Amino acid sequence: MRSASVRAALAAGGPPRDAGLMKHGGDLFEAKARHGEGDPAWLDLSTGLNPHPWPVPAALRHAGWERLPGSAAMRALLDAAREAYRVPEGAEIVAAPGTQALIQWLPRLAPPGAVSVLGLTYAEHAASWRAAGRDVIPAPDPSPPGEGESAPADRGGVLPGRGCPHPGSLPEQVRERLDPPLQGGIGGASPTHRVVVNPNNPDGRILGLAALAAMAEDCARAGGWLVVDEAYADLDPAMTAASLVPDLPVIVLRSFGKFYGLAGLRLGFAVAQPAVAERLRAALGDWAVSGPALAVGAAALADEDWAAAMRVRLAQEAAGLDAVLGEAGLSPGGGTGLYRLVRHPEAADLHERLAAAHVWCRRFDWAPDLLRFGLPPDEAGFARLREALREAAHAQGTSTASSRNRSR
Amino acid sequence: MRSASVRAALAAGGPPRDAGLMKHGGDLFEAKARHGEGDPAWLDLSTGLNPHPWPVPAALRHAGWERLPGSAAMRALLDAAREAYRVPEGAEIVAAPGTQALIQWLPRLAPPGAVSVLGLTYAEHAASWRAAGRDVIPAPDPSPPGEGESAPADRGGVLPGRGCPHPGSLPEQVRERLDPPLQGGIGGASPTHRVVVNPNNPDGRILGLAALAAMAEDCARAGGWLVVDEAYADLDPAMTAASLVPDLPVIVLRSFGKFYGLAGLRLGFAVAQPAVAERLRAALGDWAVSGPALAVGAAALADEDWAAAMRVRLAQEAAGLDAVLGEAGLSPGGGTGLYRLVRHPEAADLHERLAAAHVWCRRFDWAPDLLRFGLPPDEAGFARLREALREAAHAQGTSTASSRNRSR
Repeated sequence: MRSASVRAALAAGGPPRDAGLMKHGGDLFEAKARHGEGDPAWLDLSTGLNPHPWPVPAALRHAGWERLPGSAAMRALLDAAREAYRVPEGAEIVAAPGTQALIQWLPRLAPPGAVSVLGLTYAEHAASWRAAGRDVIPAPDPSPPGEGESAPADRGGVLPGRGCPHPGSLPEQVRERLDPPLQGGIGGASPTHRVVVNPNNPDGRILGLAALAAMAEDCARAGGWLVVDEAYADLDPAMTAASLVPDLPVIVLRSFGKFYGLAGLRLGFAVAQPAVAERLRAALGDWAVSGPALAVGAAALADEDWAAAMRVRLAQEAAGLDAVLGEAGLSPGGGTGLYRLVRHPEAADLHERLAAAHVWCRRFDWAPDLLRFGLPPDEAGFARLREALREAAHAQGTSTASSRNRSR
Repeated sequence: MRSASVRAALAAGGPPRDAGLMKHGGDLFEAKARHGEGDPAWLDLSTGLNPHPWPVPAALRHAGWERLPGSAAMRALLDAAREAYRVPEGAEIVAAPGTQALIQWLPRLAPPGAVSVLGLTYAEHAASWRAAGRDVIPAPDPSPPGEGESAPADRGGVLPGRGCPHPGSLPEQVRERLDPPLQGGIGGASPTHRVVVNPNNPDGRILGLAALAAMAEDCARAGGWLVVDEAYADLDPAMTAASLVPDLPVIVLRSFGKFYGLAGLRLGFAVAQPAVAERLRAALGDWAVSGPALAVGAAALADEDWAAAMRVRLAQEAAGLDAVLGEAGLSPGGGTGLYRLVRHPEAADLHERLAAAHVWCRRFDWAPDLLRFGLPPDEAGFARLREALREAAHAQGTSTASSRNRSR
């Protein structure tokens, strides 16, 4: 509920005149203006960032700040990234100040033609292609495997989000919002380019390599690109479309900051064929990546032991988060090892109650019954979430009861 | 002189397959491949970076790495930048991961039309407009004030580089390389947009506010933009075209990394009218600037005492550098407080001899008699430069004598 004082707070401390507006739910600014800065400190579960960052050695806290980033540092970073992201011979890898910078440029560099963005997903892809004047054709997710069917991702099928006991690729109310003519496929529209977020954000749907290859072949025939955004693919190092790149017009995006818990550093990559990589490098320009990102990225991406142990830890914690959300009666809706999607009939109301308790999760304008929770950083965070969910449920029960009383 | 072993070293350790190629002279990589990594350690004078970085407090070495950069941090940065760069009411300021990122985007966002880039200058402007498919019309610098004339910059005239006892805006052999029909002005070509680097890199030529306003009015009539790149303007805080922005289609670029000696951090700004600022923000996308850059930039830009003291110090050191270069018989060609341009009849040869002594300065493909020297970081650096110049002059004398002997 927004009071006059809340509106006043927003007016006084609201979005800065010059700042780029941050995406709803990804920034605590608005939440703090409405519910206060601290006491208790905010538990920010609105992002899908690993809350256990790669431990940056003290020496690397001082590396690369002063001089312009040099090509030797870039080479070290790209060597480590090729290895970590399993980039095959015949494919190149380009570094950028965050995957978002690549998302901004791709539509400006792609051959002419419309794009389809698969399913309901990270909104920035469609927004960026639209801003570049491209037609964006929504495309439904392929049907998830029906009961009794088997279509494992490694055979080219579709897998629901991990650890999701009730599968279904996109939530039902989401599928209904797609244009009916598009339900069975792309229909009459014929996009030149396609964008797939894999695993998908927010529902965690995974397309297997054969399905991606088939889409890439469609793109190849149309003279276009298939962009595969693997921002949340680090949980399974084998799950990458990089192996397709040498033979098909595939561009794989990899995000450093999420899995390594260093999103503020701004580092992302594109894996692409040499000619496309060259176009991207030329567009980004020299010194696109900061010296600290070069130094820390190279060291972190080479740290295989940390990555292997972190995958195990995140899987355990995601299961723990599922348990906490399940206890509160939230039904699972998919996710990845870095966030869980759940359904609740009054998601917006629950979101607001959690915010009042200074627990900040993610809601979606386009889905009134979905919430996304990132991993709490520690046991205390898990306990606070459990408690906040319990209190919100209680308050909701009271409020429901009192409105029932009023309506009598 | 390149030997077989040098060619082998270049082949073995040469430019990495995937790295963006760094600009000639700005990267030590090539120099090290040819002349060895160390012993003595390289004295890199090839950039125009302040060798005395703003002292980053330990706490800020840890700020902003983990979470996505938020709007409160962006607001703090932009508030400090508005103050430091004297941004007037009616103008907005946009932050980017380095000025280069803005240079890459501007030609993609500008209204249709050709551009003229004033004089011989930082090559990336013309390259970026060309890469965006724009016609680039070279434009000669306005004539410098003749003998006896007075056209101070604050009255709209042209000032030569500071501390340059023999003025002349661009070196003579550079002016000769401009197309003859362009010598007297832009001639038949009529650019929509104009780009001025002010003070100019490398010669330090300064256009006064009235001259810039006149150019901006031309641009306004043509429906275009005047881009004023003030990458080296920090030495004189009053020298900015920001005051023109509210009334004219001027976009001022400011570079954080050069004056604050933190180029590796990647931080730059555009001062522009609200509609243009909005276009730039939309193109750069969310989270374009890293968390460390937001935190350090905000603190450094607010540190007026450091900036004032640094301006005095850099002016003294630039005078010291002039003295060292003068002793070696190099004639002054202009510059700013962060670098000095000098002339030498065999600049390429001198550049090579200095490189052999592991002193790395900047030479220019388009000017066989120009070299640019950044400030040595300390007394030892000054001494090494003095010594290397002395030895190079001696070797040059010997080599000239020996070739004279041979030709007899």
